[in-house]
Amino acid sequence: EFVWTEQDQRAVDSSRVLAADAVEKIGSGHPGTAMSLAPAAYLLFQRHLRHDPSDPDWAGRDRFILSPGHTSLTLYLQLFFSGYGVEMKDLESLRASGSLTPGHPEYGHTPGVEMTTGPLGQGLASSVGFAYSQRRLRGMFDADAQAGTSPFDHRIYVIASDGDLQEGVTSEASSLAGHQQLGNLVVIYDDNKISIEDDTDVAFTEDVLARYEAYGWHTQRVDWTKTGQYVEDVAELDSAVRNAEQETGKPSIIALRTIIGFPSPTKQNTGGIHGSKLGTEELAGLKEILGFDPDQSFMLDDAVLAHVREVGARGAKAHAEWDAAFAAWRERTPAELVAQYDRINRGEFPDGWLNALPTFEAGKDKSTRQASGEVINALAPELPELWGGSADLAGSNNTTIEGAKSFNPVEFTTKSWKADLAGRVLHFGIREHAAAAIVNGIVTSSTLRAYSGTFLIFSDYQRPAIRLSALMGIPSIYVWTHDSIGLGEDGPTHQPVEQLAALRAIPKLDVIRPADANEVAQAWRRMLEIQDHPTGIVLTRQNVPTFPRGEDGFASAELASRGGYTLKDASNGAPEVILIGTGSEVQLAVEAQSALEAEGVPTRVVSMPSVEWFRDQSAEYRELVLPRAVRARVAVEAASSQGWHEWVGDLGRLVTLDHFGASADYKTLYSDFGITAEAVAQAGRDSLAATRS
Amino acid sequence: EFVWTEQDQRAVDSSRVLAADAVEKIGSGHPGTAMSLAPAAYLLFQRHLRHDPSDPDWAGRDRFILSPGHTSLTLYLQLFFSGYGVEMKDLESLRASGSLTPGHPEYGHTPGVEMTTGPLGQGLASSVGFAYSQRRLRGMFDADAQAGTSPFDHRIYVIASDGDLQEGVTSEASSLAGHQQLGNLVVIYDDNKISIEDDTDVAFTEDVLARYEAYGWHTQRVDWTKTGQYVEDVAELDSAVRNAEQETGKPSIIALRTIIGFPSPTKQNTGGIHGSKLGTEELAGLKEILGFDPDQSFMLDDAVLAHVREVGARGAKAHAEWDAAFAAWRERTPAELVAQYDRINRGEFPDGWLNALPTFEAGKDKSTRQASGEVINALAPELPELWGGSADLAGSNNTTIEGAKSFNPVEFTTKSWKADLAGRVLHFGIREHAAAAIVNGIVTSSTLRAYSGTFLIFSDYQRPAIRLSALMGIPSIYVWTHDSIGLGEDGPTHQPVEQLAALRAIPKLDVIRPADANEVAQAWRRMLEIQDHPTGIVLTRQNVPTFPRGEDGFASAELASRGGYTLKDASNGAPEVILIGTGSEVQLAVEAQSALEAEGVPTRVVSMPSVEWFRDQSAEYRELVLPRAVRARVAVEAASSQGWHEWVGDLGRLVTLDHFGASADYKTLYSDFGITAEAVAQAGRDSLAATRS
Repeated sequence: EFVWTEQDQRAVDSSRVLAADAVEKIGSGHPGTAMSLAPAAYLLFQRHLRHDPSDPDWAGRDRFILSPGHTSLTLYLQLFFSGYGVEMKDLESLRASGSLTPGHPEYGHTPGVEMTTGPLGQGLASSVGFAYSQRRLRGMFDADAQAGTSPFDHRIYVIASDGDLQEGVTSEASSLAGHQQLGNLVVIYDDNKISIEDDTDVAFTEDVLARYEAYGWHTQRVDWTKTGQYVEDVAELDSAVRNAEQETGKPSIIALRTIIGFPSPTKQNTGGIHGSKLGTEELAGLKEILGFDPDQSFMLDDAVLAHVREVGARGAKAHAEWDAAFAAWRERTPAELVAQYDRINRGEFPDGWLNALPTFEAGKDKSTRQASGEVINALAPELPELWGGSADLAGSNNTTIEGAKSFNPVEFTTKSWKADLAGRVLHFGIREHAAAAIVNGIVTSSTLRAYSGTFLIFSDYQRPAIRLSALMGIPSIYVWTHDSIGLGEDGPTHQPVEQLAALRAIPKLDVIRPADANEVAQAWRRMLEIQDHPTGIVLTRQNVPTFPRGEDGFASAELASRGGYTLKDASNGAPEVILIGTGSEVQLAVEAQSALEAEGVPTRVVSMPSVEWFRDQSAEYRELVLPRAVRARVAVEAASSQGWHEWVGDLGRLVTLDHFGASADYKTLYSDFGITAEAVAQAGRDSLAATRS
Repeated sequence: EFVWTEQDQRAVDSSRVLAADAVEKIGSGHPGTAMSLAPAAYLLFQRHLRHDPSDPDWAGRDRFILSPGHTSLTLYLQLFFSGYGVEMKDLESLRASGSLTPGHPEYGHTPGVEMTTGPLGQGLASSVGFAYSQRRLRGMFDADAQAGTSPFDHRIYVIASDGDLQEGVTSEASSLAGHQQLGNLVVIYDDNKISIEDDTDVAFTEDVLARYEAYGWHTQRVDWTKTGQYVEDVAELDSAVRNAEQETGKPSIIALRTIIGFPSPTKQNTGGIHGSKLGTEELAGLKEILGFDPDQSFMLDDAVLAHVREVGARGAKAHAEWDAAFAAWRERTPAELVAQYDRINRGEFPDGWLNALPTFEAGKDKSTRQASGEVINALAPELPELWGGSADLAGSNNTTIEGAKSFNPVEFTTKSWKADLAGRVLHFGIREHAAAAIVNGIVTSSTLRAYSGTFLIFSDYQRPAIRLSALMGIPSIYVWTHDSIGLGEDGPTHQPVEQLAALRAIPKLDVIRPADANEVAQAWRRMLEIQDHPTGIVLTRQNVPTFPRGEDGFASAELASRGGYTLKDASNGAPEVILIGTGSEVQLAVEAQSALEAEGVPTRVVSMPSVEWFRDQSAEYRELVLPRAVRARVAVEAASSQGWHEWVGDLGRLVTLDHFGASADYKTLYSDFGITAEAVAQAGRDSLAATRS
């Protein structure tokens, strides 16, 4: 019943030749897997994916993720064939400035690219998040529909490479995928046994499918070398993909044994064809083998193009059927729920949601992590799109939406957590990197708002995924608690020092370190409002004062959303010294202010919860908070000094921490390391003296 | 034949009670696994480990790594029992400032602690490196000895937790351990099914042992709950450890089913006992169950202490036997090889090794990665202790010691790489994090010098291991190539922007970004000389000029080891502008200097390959290079501006890159992003104008 026509074969062969042409022209790129994966990619796009090239954002589409982003041509060629707007000229300008066809697929840049890939492991790891969002949305909006009948049903198809399978983040996410029994996830693993250092025998000899079975996946092997010849038995692969689709209780992986660069005459099956152009002779040889004219480049028979573009009509039909199903869903579903779906889908907030934002009473010390947990729980009833959880630190990160069920198969209900397939509390296990990658997948594939929690120190484990969220411009939210030596006895392995600077260095990531509970509330408000880039909130373990807003000279916490603001201005004249603090150190600045003012030095305290948000303010506003004329300045932060010279200037002083912490109670550490109100006051005196000398 | 006396049992029970006492006193810590792992840890230290508490650095010892560092008491109690100098008073000052017993075990702080652990996964991952160094040393110095007969033979024992088994870095390293057939690695996995979020069923339901079988490990299960009662069948565990020891062709993992916090009366088997003190009543209950006086704390029967301390005599005997074997090895081994061993063991360099350091001719452009590869290969014959490799980017990272064999079982010889069990070229596969963790293990457990290579962008994948190397003060070497937008068409997923700032923020890590081939040579020299902290060298993909040292005003490259130096001073008077550059951007500063001097502005070019090394210079030297009086300054680096304000000051200007890159050829990118000689010259003019206004 599986039909594979000459035109199909010609199309696949054309895509190989075009891939080789594209790399040859620019002189760099990755032709090898674009050639050998051509049949698999073609099979998915032409026969399996439910997609409509005229509407790349169609909610009902199946998703395709190319985890080895370096083989971007594999995807670009199918986008070209399907009619996503990638055309021959784009193949001709592969990897060129401004082209639709950059070196690695870029989300938001090329229609049909579901996520940016290239850093290996991220695509496969985030695909798990794609499956999470699908299951949660279906559970929220169409829980009672029979399997396969809901407009909220769709599949996620992934092509993964040896590299993806070796990266730890994939191991973490794959373990979770098996645990979660993600039956709509179908992975084709390109088992070509070649990577850049040639034969993978030098470093990768494990039994991958046995490992995936151990994770609880459905596994299959399709070996195109099994006859001793290399035979691209597309029917066999098609049958395996169908089996995978029919397995709805487990994620599926198909190990597809290919020969990289097939049928390149001399370079197939070598590391050499992975990331280099074929060269004139080899390319000509390839074309001859496949029956193309070696003297012509970037050719495609009109008939072949017409054939492959038929996917558009099939997609339109599927889309129309889905539209009807979706309309039926709207009919049969309570209007309120439909309205909620529409609202979430538009990325809008419900009317009055901010009324739920808590304000915290002054005078009671509270850790900012606890305040964060209270804010999450206050907003949760208003924002069903908000969900998240922790990498096994739920109680410490205060990330749990109380009373909500856990996102888990029901059989994994425990004494502490009641499970539901569409639950709202995420449990990542001790897998910080996968947590971040999965949240990336959730927010890339839906307008759900998701967060992950861990200790700030473990943001180090998450950096590749954090960076990718910033690069994609997606609103992943990171909750990072235990933000400094203030965590105390757990010692230097757990005490962040350089993490704040390292995170602030990431373009397009906003880092927010609120000073008190009310700044936390304002931070969450703005973080939720931001929908085009990621944000991370950095929270204390230890209690900090809740400042008396509107009293004693303390400004409104609403100013926190400006990133930096005058928390408490000089009480005895125009400020001569400015003390800038973040997070738990703002209280030290406030204490030092009293000391300096008692000495007759008018002193301003600036709370700077987010350097990025402050930078985004107008020059006028920034001048208002940090007047150029006031050069006596101190920055206090229990973290690396890196970056603070910019704000305090040549005559400023820093009360910071440029070495590792230690294991002791936090008060001892602050004192031993000289992060004290007295040190801030003294730094203020020193800086003032410098301005006068 | 396995004997377990009442005194043994009393010792184990004492260690449980002491662990609970210690946490109770300080009020925080992790008693749960210290209690339930007590029998296993006791069994290892008293019956299996070959160790001599009087000589914690004995080269012939077996190594023990406690991967879940939070259960530090598990280790501290065995160090106390064995007589490493940890005494009762140290248990009483658990987690207190300056104590021998910090929250997590710290390398170099407490005798008997083989590495710092706490960030989960690192211990188990680095243990693989411990096994690498053992095999390489044995192969270098006693290759022909029969198995088990060499003084270079020893085992590595690891206790690992659920958290360790979930972390991706462990997956990466465990796959390599299986591939490498590390028969001297014995892991006890504390399969207690409880983590901080309570029952691990919420996130961790994979079949761990099946996964390890897939990696090629020898696996065993010891289930102390199998009778329906919890019975700590130490004999069964002992037998499993013996099996593991006898399996010399594979690493071994024993899944030991324990009940966390056993036999705490009400809190055993809960997440609550993981990281909190028991409380008065529960602690009293525990003591009663175990036959201790609930009114007394920190008690140990003299007889029990005497019994456990007998390990010292056994260790001394083993040490003496080893000394004899080692003396015999010295006898039977060529004097030159013995001398080489002694030299490497002392961490010294061979006479005249620097004669091998290449100098590179001016006038020929060369990428710094290529220069680095040439330096490695020039030094390799002089320094057999130097070895390393790449995370599947050997050709790109230029990390291969040519002609050397790969460190691999012989069966994994491939067309490209000849394998030897004691080979010198490391292949990490696409596992950057494990690469860093394994190198940490190698250099922690030996005086071998090891390096790993990857693209700079993928340092993000390595950060937890990088940080740990800095925290431990070990000389891991990182080779990071493709250091900027200069890598070109691979685009923003591969182009570092924030990585330099993020790495420079790590305390005790030196980051070196040489400007040309001769700076590369000097950088390698100093990196090798540094033995008390890690260093990372940051290298270009693209060619850069090799400056004419000693001609045309160019200073000697030997100054590079000072971190910053005047590369080319003003030719027409005292400098009025200083242009500071790093790496490939130094050439832009040199070009800009010509432009400015043509305009009559005396201009100095400072090459700043390492901010950290420059910071370490005397104030006088720094003033010499960057005179306070010259406030017109420019820093140029194709990376985040973060950190540069410190060096250019309030009137300085920055030519940097605070956004993501793009996919295009590198010359277009430099031009489009305004990182050009003209931009540097203009910034110099602007800064000079600012000093005059």
